[in-house]
Amino acid sequence: MSYRIEKDTMGEVRVPADKYWGAQTQRSVQNFRIGPSGSMPIEIIEAFAFLKKAAAITNCELGVLASEKRDAIAAVCDEIIAGKLNDEFPLVIWQTGSGTQSNMNVNEVVANRAHVLGGHRLGEGERLLNPNDDVNKSQSSNDTFPTAMHIAAYRVLTAVTIPGIRRLRDELQRQAEALREVVKIGRTHWMDATPLTLGQEFSGYVSQLDHALKAIENTLPHLAELALGGTAVGTGLNTPKGYAVKVAETIASLTGLPFVTAENKFEALAAHDAIVETHGALKQAAVSLMKIANDIRMLASGPRSGIGEITIPPNEPGSSIMPGKVNPTQVEAVTMVCAQVMGNDVAVSVGGSNGHFELNVFKPVMIANLLQSARLLGDACVSFCDNCVCGIEPNHPRVREHLENSLMLVTALNPHIGYYKAAEIAKKAHAEGTTLRQAALDLGYLTSEQFDEWVVPSKMTGSLD
Amino acid sequence: MSYRIEKDTMGEVRVPADKYWGAQTQRSVQNFRIGPSGSMPIEIIEAFAFLKKAAAITNCELGVLASEKRDAIAAVCDEIIAGKLNDEFPLVIWQTGSGTQSNMNVNEVVANRAHVLGGHRLGEGERLLNPNDDVNKSQSSNDTFPTAMHIAAYRVLTAVTIPGIRRLRDELQRQAEALREVVKIGRTHWMDATPLTLGQEFSGYVSQLDHALKAIENTLPHLAELALGGTAVGTGLNTPKGYAVKVAETIASLTGLPFVTAENKFEALAAHDAIVETHGALKQAAVSLMKIANDIRMLASGPRSGIGEITIPPNEPGSSIMPGKVNPTQVEAVTMVCAQVMGNDVAVSVGGSNGHFELNVFKPVMIANLLQSARLLGDACVSFCDNCVCGIEPNHPRVREHLENSLMLVTALNPHIGYYKAAEIAKKAHAEGTTLRQAALDLGYLTSEQFDEWVVPSKMTGSLD
Amino acid sequence: MSYRIEKDTMGEVRVPADKYWGAQTQRSVQNFRIGPSGSMPIEIIEAFAFLKKAAAITNCELGVLASEKRDAIAAVCDEIIAGKLNDEFPLVIWQTGSGTQSNMNVNEVVANRAHVLGGHRLGEGERLLNPNDDVNKSQSSNDTFPTAMHIAAYRVLTAVTIPGIRRLRDELQRQAEALREVVKIGRTHWMDATPLTLGQEFSGYVSQLDHALKAIENTLPHLAELALGGTAVGTGLNTPKGYAVKVAETIASLTGLPFVTAENKFEALAAHDAIVETHGALKQAAVSLMKIANDIRMLASGPRSGIGEITIPPNEPGSSIMPGKVNPTQVEAVTMVCAQVMGNDVAVSVGGSNGHFELNVFKPVMIANLLQSARLLGDACVSFCDNCVCGIEPNHPRVREHLENSLMLVTALNPHIGYYKAAEIAKKAHAEGTTLRQAALDLGYLTSEQFDEWVVPSKMTGSLD
Amino acid sequence: MSYRIEKDTMGEVRVPADKYWGAQTQRSVQNFRIGPSGSMPIEIIEAFAFLKKAAAITNCELGVLASEKRDAIAAVCDEIIAGKLNDEFPLVIWQTGSGTQSNMNVNEVVANRAHVLGGHRLGEGERLLNPNDDVNKSQSSNDTFPTAMHIAAYRVLTAVTIPGIRRLRDELQRQAEALREVVKIGRTHWMDATPLTLGQEFSGYVSQLDHALKAIENTLPHLAELALGGTAVGTGLNTPKGYAVKVAETIASLTGLPFVTAENKFEALAAHDAIVETHGALKQAAVSLMKIANDIRMLASGPRSGIGEITIPPNEPGSSIMPGKVNPTQVEAVTMVCAQVMGNDVAVSVGGSNGHFELNVFKPVMIANLLQSARLLGDACVSFCDNCVCGIEPNHPRVREHLENSLMLVTALNPHIGYYKAAEIAKKAHAEGTTLRQAALDLGYLTSEQFDEWVVPSKMTGSLD
Repeated sequence: MSYRIEKDTMGEVRVPADKYWGAQTQRSVQNFRIGPSGSMPIEIIEAFAFLKKAAAITNCELGVLASEKRDAIAAVCDEIIAGKLNDEFPLVIWQTGSGTQSNMNVNEVVANRAHVLGGHRLGEGERLLNPNDDVNKSQSSNDTFPTAMHIAAYRVLTAVTIPGIRRLRDELQRQAEALREVVKIGRTHWMDATPLTLGQEFSGYVSQLDHALKAIENTLPHLAELALGGTAVGTGLNTPKGYAVKVAETIASLTGLPFVTAENKFEALAAHDAIVETHGALKQAAVSLMKIANDIRMLASGPRSGIGEITIPPNEPGSSIMPGKVNPTQVEAVTMVCAQVMGNDVAVSVGGSNGHFELNVFKPVMIANLLQSARLLGDACVSFCDNCVCGIEPNHPRVREHLENSLMLVTALNPHIGYYKAAEIAKKAHAEGTTLRQAALDLGYLTSEQFDEWVVPSKMTGSLD
Repeated sequence: MSYRIEKDTMGEVRVPADKYWGAQTQRSVQNFRIGPSGSMPIEIIEAFAFLKKAAAITNCELGVLASEKRDAIAAVCDEIIAGKLNDEFPLVIWQTGSGTQSNMNVNEVVANRAHVLGGHRLGEGERLLNPNDDVNKSQSSNDTFPTAMHIAAYRVLTAVTIPGIRRLRDELQRQAEALREVVKIGRTHWMDATPLTLGQEFSGYVSQLDHALKAIENTLPHLAELALGGTAVGTGLNTPKGYAVKVAETIASLTGLPFVTAENKFEALAAHDAIVETHGALKQAAVSLMKIANDIRMLASGPRSGIGEITIPPNEPGSSIMPGKVNPTQVEAVTMVCAQVMGNDVAVSVGGSNGHFELNVFKPVMIANLLQSARLLGDACVSFCDNCVCGIEPNHPRVREHLENSLMLVTALNPHIGYYKAAEIAKKAHAEGTTLRQAALDLGYLTSEQFDEWVVPSKMTGSLD
Repeated sequence: MSYRIEKDTMGEVRVPADKYWGAQTQRSVQNFRIGPSGSMPIEIIEAFAFLKKAAAITNCELGVLASEKRDAIAAVCDEIIAGKLNDEFPLVIWQTGSGTQSNMNVNEVVANRAHVLGGHRLGEGERLLNPNDDVNKSQSSNDTFPTAMHIAAYRVLTAVTIPGIRRLRDELQRQAEALREVVKIGRTHWMDATPLTLGQEFSGYVSQLDHALKAIENTLPHLAELALGGTAVGTGLNTPKGYAVKVAETIASLTGLPFVTAENKFEALAAHDAIVETHGALKQAAVSLMKIANDIRMLASGPRSGIGEITIPPNEPGSSIMPGKVNPTQVEAVTMVCAQVMGNDVAVSVGGSNGHFELNVFKPVMIANLLQSARLLGDACVSFCDNCVCGIEPNHPRVREHLENSLMLVTALNPHIGYYKAAEIAKKAHAEGTTLRQAALDLGYLTSEQFDEWVVPSKMTGSLD
Repeated sequence: MSYRIEKDTMGEVRVPADKYWGAQTQRSVQNFRIGPSGSMPIEIIEAFAFLKKAAAITNCELGVLASEKRDAIAAVCDEIIAGKLNDEFPLVIWQTGSGTQSNMNVNEVVANRAHVLGGHRLGEGERLLNPNDDVNKSQSSNDTFPTAMHIAAYRVLTAVTIPGIRRLRDELQRQAEALREVVKIGRTHWMDATPLTLGQEFSGYVSQLDHALKAIENTLPHLAELALGGTAVGTGLNTPKGYAVKVAETIASLTGLPFVTAENKFEALAAHDAIVETHGALKQAAVSLMKIANDIRMLASGPRSGIGEITIPPNEPGSSIMPGKVNPTQVEAVTMVCAQVMGNDVAVSVGGSNGHFELNVFKPVMIANLLQSARLLGDACVSFCDNCVCGIEPNHPRVREHLENSLMLVTALNPHIGYYKAAEIAKKAHAEGTTLRQAALDLGYLTSEQFDEWVVPSKMTGSLD
């Protein structure tokens, strides 16, 4: 590989000749060989491009940056956003906890790429843009990285997570309606209970996801607050007057999202409670999805020796040894994602709780976990929806068989003969392997006509209507 | 000990002669010897008393319960709420996961205590109230226990947690104002950084708690939804028409809290996402408090060999071996509470994710963790506020010494001479153990007058104003 | 209430007249009103009694404490161990993170109780024992509290946890043998799979618990290391020569457990990795138990519309509304305990990771969580064993029905006709709702005789024998 | 892109023409678009290559596979192990929870690549190897994937994690020796305490890592147990006699690691307690490292307004806005890794606790988390060691200044004048801002000569020697 020499305040560094990054990026490459390279999420890099562009526009507007420089910065940022420079960001999550090195990675790439776009050769001649004084003008890693965190998180949430959950929610709602008349046995404690409809069962899932979406949306206002303008410690040192408000407006305008400047910049640098808050809501969604997905795999269990009240689409051969087996694989992917999100929540909380003084230095690990959770949840919901939930069908014969066998229909007799006598009937039927009707008549607690009138499964599902 | 005989549908059980509880409670006492007895939170029992009374009132209003029975039930519930019957609830958290046994404990105590209030002797004669058919009328454990969970949680949150956090928040706000002119060195990465004021530092804590309070309040609407009226599986079997809405209104009226009937009862029994959601917000508060408390102990460290920029009140001798030592003990209590809450959050999530079909059977463990977290956070905030934060004083000489020594004041020179020359000055001063001014002049980058004009710590803290 | 005046280095404090505790305990009572009073686990107090007695014996042996004082200390410690003074320890977990106040609570109670045992009146006259100079001689909270942590943990583990898990393990082993010939369908992905025996299924549970016990036992050597002798920061300041080794030997002798002095006292005070390690093993046991308990409730589900391959004992009425219902309540208690232990593990880890310099100040929260987990697991295993597992019976008709219906018996044909043809048979049988035999013959892939020879469920379970 | 047609038991699938994978892999690619592609860890693929080769060798040895087929399988496995086919494994973690699709991915690649190595064109002609009947012979996903999990985990632990931790441990030990005479002030509760040496402080870190290594090693025997031979549900259906033991021996021989066949295959498929166990030990290591890394950043804080008792190497410019700033970036990477590992532990536990019946279907998420944790910890330790710990130097002037100022040297007076008088001296010195000596003399509790004799910091560190 051929190299060129780049410099920073600490001296010279050899950098791969064809890469746009500079000395500080290269130092980080060398000093942090932890896990696979390039693990810093690309969403963070894109978010940086939005904010660097916004900062350049605002700096220019406020008279501290030449319009030529603004345009040079903006042009490279547009390339980054378009995904054209993805190979220029080799750094890992496990670097400095302020993300300074990724901020400098962006600063360096912008400066060098602009130099080339300006018709020069990389590493030769005077650059128009200085990474620190121009690209990073009115900024610090300490306020840019948290700003990038919020931008990246907000974008993934609104582009992937929320639409993904909503799509699943809508499909479950469609199913709830389609299945609204399928009366089936209920199960509590894994034991037969009083009946409900499959549609009612699914309506519970819809309600869970409605609440999950509400919970995620509740966290967006905190996430909309941007640290930019706080610079090194939150005081806004070295920013022109009016900068913080304006740069947030510019980011809002560039991204189409309702970003505002954080009311308190000290919090915005020193704590990442907004990330903790949002991830808490994602974790809640994971908890909900785990329940829903488990139910579906259990309801679909069988085909012959399980519950088997619904069927799900066979998408692939299920076993490398058992021929003809079909498994609830989408459910498994979803529940594994849920386990991951539940774990990530702890990583985020541990990071969030360990900030000290003016800076929390668990920024990269916090945002990496949030972005992973947000994407996995969104993707998994779509996959689950399209490859499983949409194809769920009731297995009517099985549903009917279970319903008719159920001893818990006896509950309908409570208001008529009291809990104790009803219990006697159920126990007798259970012990003798007979029907409720038989046991009831044998005990002489009611007539056959009364039984028919009082024990009507479909009526037992409807008192909420 | 003397005993009397009580019966349930399974047969006879010996119960301590002087206790109001009955057969099912006693079975639970005997079958679940797990951990200390009586661990089911008393807040749950109180919540049950509210709901039993409300159910009785509603049942009577809807014509399915005699007013005599209503009054008998209400009278005992009032005693329970007043704390007069606390010894009658011996069950543990680690019982059936639906909390059925605690529901029956309340039903049995109400029936037997009413019998005694009615002038009879315990265990003798016919009781006015049947535990299942009267006290539990129009109810199931499956809808009462989650209702009690929400009532208990909402009450503790509004009576203890939110006021506690707010009290601490207000005291931090008072301090932020009191300390607003104390210019001090900032610290990022534990390294000296540009200055800010102590008041600004504290304002970050206030902002964290403001967001934490907002996050907790965001969860209250979900918590305000009550399951009651769903009975066994969410269908509302065996409830009179209009019951669910009315009983929630009655509970709202009795508790003075904005409870409403849950729109979807299937979710309300089968999942406890509201508990997960609220606990997520409590966990966020714990994360915030951990940061705040850590900062305060670190800022107060010393008295001679630490940071020492603030002092905290000495409340007790700090060491059994080191005479005269004073420790940040309140901080330690707070941070231990935070660790507990972070752990409890996982317990709640694991419980929440493991519900199956029509019922989540991790109810007791979920609510016990939530109530513990809610109370500990509220109590800890009050203790921290009253015994520590209110007595915080700046240590002016130390603050001034640190500020004057700081090399990071050099940052103020960036806009004038650029990042690279500024770095050169700082490094020279650091290497030679001299002042920034000296190094700057030696390097010839600026004049003494310029230094005085540009490097003014108090101005460095103010650009956000 | 009447009071007497007690003093410490900070001045006078009013203490309830009839309580043995002194000024520092009282300060803690007043300054830490967080959660229910007396929450510091009594096991810690007992452990303190062992160590105070051992320290007195060792101090005397090494010539720095009079034998009269030794005997006075030992006499009170024996009372504490016997549980006679439980009401004298009102402090909470949420105190100073070193547990200093509980150490002083013990010191004060020993000094005052010895005064009374010596024939004096509480609060009058000169005490033989000074809480700091005598009862705490050669000690610091910083080494006594961690020592008490290890003693308490080791005792509960060996008295409750390990025997409890072993009892359950042995009962599962008995069942595995009893059920060794019950051939049943296997289930993977919740879908019907190839057969195994119920005994084989249970043998997996036994193996899990064997590994869990091994894992717990692996952590005991670390837990056997005692911090005592490190005093304030681990250097052993103010201890007589040979003290650390001897006092550990004395504790070993008093408790009958293999305690040794920690090789490195700096670790023993500044970190509680032994607690983290042991709790990690408890968490593993919880993970195992969750699996086992879940299986049992699912296998017992029904009675008519679930899996129903085993029955479990009905211990109590299962529902307050559904008469005759019997639920797997023991399983629910166990799995709730598991959720708690999984949460506690995070609390312990957060505490363990936040120690700084010479002292970890999350001691009380760490040990409280460990003791709770250890006791709950032990108790829950016994309860589960005695009230559920011992009464498990196979439901032969159901087991047979499931087995005979299974399409996955087709797997036995792979070696004879290949995976692809076998799959064809299974799919045909599934689609047409017919038997494997029928489908196989229809497809002409084998003869009826070959089918009988090759597809023998009981043989399919035996190749590991 | 051009495609070829591949088939499985469900029908035809279009596969990229130049890829070796087949129908089932392609179905998974299409059905599981969750997160970035190819996320299944490559270590798992390598482990599969070892086990496929070992299975082929064993099958041949036991007479159920032709030697020609064995050699064909082995040749491709060697290519996989050499990393030559990495692009052939596009599947994600978030697939079926048994990892069946990755098992089939390997089976398909082996069959097709062998076809090409045999001189044929991909997709044309009859293949020597059938993916299911030959490459997967005597195997099931259900036993191969857990086997691959253990192989991959064991390899990473022994190649990366343990050596990495040990390297850091050894460097800390070297430093502990180098710093053994640097007497410094101790800190407990963040407050000045009695002295110790820097070497003693570091010896505590060494002891932590020694225990962490011990804990990890304790888990290896469980991890050494291989599931292979259990096939579909643990019974070993369709395996030749003696296979399980022999194939484990072959894997041991191929990998040079002490693998053995699992004594109980039912556990080995249905539970992954070994993964939970090992990850628990990794989490313990993370807890230890968090403490160690925190200490080092705090000790190195400053350079002027912090603790500043040690210096660490400046590896890169620390700030994009504050010139000349140097930060403890390696510490930050380490502590972020620790946060991740603490989170991953919960993901692993949640996965581990949710296995049902004969199969745990959280396999991919569990192993992905374990491998990530294992690698990150090992890499981070090396990075921390080589880029930070090895360059730690004591800052003697600062160490001395702190020591001399300390009021806690007063503790040395306890045995001479008692705790209470010693406290009086310390408090007086603190209040008056004077020295201990001055305060002691003023109070008349001892002479100047006694002070000099009794208060000798270096002696205060040595009583453990």
